[in-house]
Amino acid sequence: MKKKAERLARSGRRNAGGSFTKVRRLPKRGAYDPETIYSVLDAALYCHVAHIIEKRPVATPTLHWRHGNQLYWHGSAASRMLKANSTGAAVCLTATLVDGFVLARSGFNHSMNYRSAMCFGHPKEITDNAAKALALEHFLERWFPGRWATLRPPTRKELAATRVLTMPIDEASAKIRTGGPHDPEKDVDWPVWAGVVPLHLEVRAPVPAEDYRATAAAPALPRI
Amino acid sequence: MKKKAERLARSGRRNAGGSFTKVRRLPKRGAYDPETIYSVLDAALYCHVAHIIEKRPVATPTLHWRHGNQLYWHGSAASRMLKANSTGAAVCLTATLVDGFVLARSGFNHSMNYRSAMCFGHPKEITDNAAKALALEHFLERWFPGRWATLRPPTRKELAATRVLTMPIDEASAKIRTGGPHDPEKDVDWPVWAGVVPLHLEVRAPVPAEDYRATAAAPALPRI
Repeated sequence: MKKKAERLARSGRRNAGGSFTKVRRLPKRGAYDPETIYSVLDAALYCHVAHIIEKRPVATPTLHWRHGNQLYWHGSAASRMLKANSTGAAVCLTATLVDGFVLARSGFNHSMNYRSAMCFGHPKEITDNAAKALALEHFLERWFPGRWATLRPPTRKELAATRVLTMPIDEASAKIRTGGPHDPEKDVDWPVWAGVVPLHLEVRAPVPAEDYRATAAAPALPRI
Repeated sequence: MKKKAERLARSGRRNAGGSFTKVRRLPKRGAYDPETIYSVLDAALYCHVAHIIEKRPVATPTLHWRHGNQLYWHGSAASRMLKANSTGAAVCLTATLVDGFVLARSGFNHSMNYRSAMCFGHPKEITDNAAKALALEHFLERWFPGRWATLRPPTRKELAATRVLTMPIDEASAKIRTGGPHDPEKDVDWPVWAGVVPLHLEVRAPVPAEDYRATAAAPALPRI
């Protein structure tokens, strides 16, 4: 991983600090190394894809996954977003996790702890059915290892109705904030509570489907 | 609230089913009534704003809040996103909550339970300091009622360094999925577990700042 990161950093492929990708606000929170970017993308369950439809910006929520240096997302072949994405137009895929409210002594110094990765590129559609099925397997395996092999296998018709898009993670940045509030010394004694209220996307106990009558074990809970 | 919804529906202000806002995929999941749209916006802690910068789509994460039929977000006056937003260009603000993994008998019928609200418009900047401070108060009060009055009050310089944007919730739609998997009857006996793995953004116990030496009570945990 380290080696690959170094190679990517050397090649400049990640466009670190390029005119568009560069984190401009609070640059000390910005990161361009693949380990950091991958770790945010892998921790985030879902993302928002910004794209332009009929000359207007649109942010569409979707689930993404990563395999190596490729980013993937999918949906119905009839989806307006995926149709637009499959023509190779520019997109921005941003995945964000909120880790806590940061409560300071002044409103101005309030903040959030978060991790965010912003990836720019031009997605391509995966049209080969075997490649599509493999990508979807990676997607499910990400959260439920071992489940794919136990499912009723996909039909050709189902694969045809599913669009899978991919783009390399070549122009990307991450932004991360951690820790407590940064109040100036003159504010520290203001008589109000200050600190962090942590947030975490919790996975709860599985609830069987109403029509569930098999006797398979419930899946292990994904670690999020 | 009902009355307002009816009025808005009658006036067509929400552009229900308009050519751009209309939920095209799985329209039975779509909703245009303000109660539903407001409830999703109010439940979501953060959103992604899609906008066009240098002709490219960008999705920027931020915290939003709502007051009546107005949507608000804020940030540094130096932020590239907020500069772009303040010139009245089109944006799309999408707030999404994930409520659960929906595990079906086939990969194809897997889904997510989620709530999402997509709002289109042209934001305006709030330049009046008193109006700006009031908007920020609404923002903080949303999650920590009573806290604003206990803080070190904002200075003129701090307000000048903060950009607050607003736009009416006039062209918006919500999309919601709830419940278990929808497998065809022929798949129901496939020997795999099927049901929902619920997800919830959990608020954890507050952690005082390292430099905290006052004796104020920790805030009540916000209900998310």
